[in-house]
Amino acid sequence: MTQLTNAQLTNAQLTNVGKSTNIVWHQSNVTRAQRERLNQHKGLTLWFTGLSGSGKSTLSHGVERRLFAMGCRTYVLDGDNVRHGLNSDLGFSDKDRVENIRRVGEVAKLFMDAGLIVLTAFISPFRSDRRLVRQSMAEGDFIEVYCKSSLEVCEQRDVKGLYRRARAGEIPNFTGISSPYEVPEYPELILNTETESVESCITQVVDFLLQRGVISMDNRFGQE
Amino acid sequence: MTQLTNAQLTNAQLTNVGKSTNIVWHQSNVTRAQRERLNQHKGLTLWFTGLSGSGKSTLSHGVERRLFAMGCRTYVLDGDNVRHGLNSDLGFSDKDRVENIRRVGEVAKLFMDAGLIVLTAFISPFRSDRRLVRQSMAEGDFIEVYCKSSLEVCEQRDVKGLYRRARAGEIPNFTGISSPYEVPEYPELILNTETESVESCITQVVDFLLQRGVISMDNRFGQE
Repeated sequence: MTQLTNAQLTNAQLTNVGKSTNIVWHQSNVTRAQRERLNQHKGLTLWFTGLSGSGKSTLSHGVERRLFAMGCRTYVLDGDNVRHGLNSDLGFSDKDRVENIRRVGEVAKLFMDAGLIVLTAFISPFRSDRRLVRQSMAEGDFIEVYCKSSLEVCEQRDVKGLYRRARAGEIPNFTGISSPYEVPEYPELILNTETESVESCITQVVDFLLQRGVISMDNRFGQE
Repeated sequence: MTQLTNAQLTNAQLTNVGKSTNIVWHQSNVTRAQRERLNQHKGLTLWFTGLSGSGKSTLSHGVERRLFAMGCRTYVLDGDNVRHGLNSDLGFSDKDRVENIRRVGEVAKLFMDAGLIVLTAFISPFRSDRRLVRQSMAEGDFIEVYCKSSLEVCEQRDVKGLYRRARAGEIPNFTGISSPYEVPEYPELILNTETESVESCITQVVDFLLQRGVISMDNRFGQE
């Protein structure tokens, strides 16, 4: 009935519009809206930004666990799964940092298209890079989450010992020490990780998603 | 209770092992197994390979639609969503083609880690490139699906008019014409798209997934 015949493929070709020449599968493509209906929540990108040690990883994974417990489909993109794989060919030069963030943005878009709530945890210190990612997404898809913590506190925490090494001159272009961090001008969310608890910060993000209608109280499957 | 204190972060740091210095979030990480349990099916990569016009796009999207109708979480990576986004910086030189496939493999791994069944639709003509992706994944995660169709039939179909342009010398290094296609030696699946219908090919893939226990007959939610 649906044999891969020349006639059929030619018919498909006839429906080409503009530069889009790969139209065959379009007719049977699963849409983002259909995926979101199956998932019972919307796709979205929560872009965590902030200094090293400001809580991006802790909070993005904390939010993910809370959302997962509510039955949501989520994924965290961070240095651990991106720098060692997809972006293993990139270093820390200015050019490579820009490319690093660009690729993360593109992968986030794929995950959103698949209907997932994506959480990214990268310092992403430059406004221009974050703006490029925001502009590449549809209105409302990019939620900038600023993990606010002073350099002093981050350096005091020094979870990975990176600040000590940066002060010793062992790490060039280290954000906050020898390279600037450009504070978000209009982030959708500011999490004050210096004064608030992890749980409180996580709750703020989840409440935001509820208010925006990204998730609903029905997403309480009690998976944990 | 779970405040982001220096003491807590220092404790986390103390659990570092080897080169893994980013241990804080690890304790609260959602695992692939947990995601697969939520999805009620396993993550996997179905790697479609074959000549241009051999049916990779049609079949990968056809399989996806069938799986989606069964309530599975899936995503297709193809030229349409990868070449124009993530890999928009890549051309068609040998080096760029290798990098194209490498990145697709890495993104497929991220999607699998998120618990999805990933379907990739790239000519991916070289054994070495496909082998690199296979080797980068865990045993059983990479399923090579060879879309078998003779050059003659693919060229006769010429859905995108690419063969005509390649014959006219307008497209250099075109697989099958001026660049080799290395037939898979040990593909997990061979779909004969020259003699079998689209529906029959799709059924073969779904049956394979059922036999392997990737999906189960319980995945019949009747979403369509």
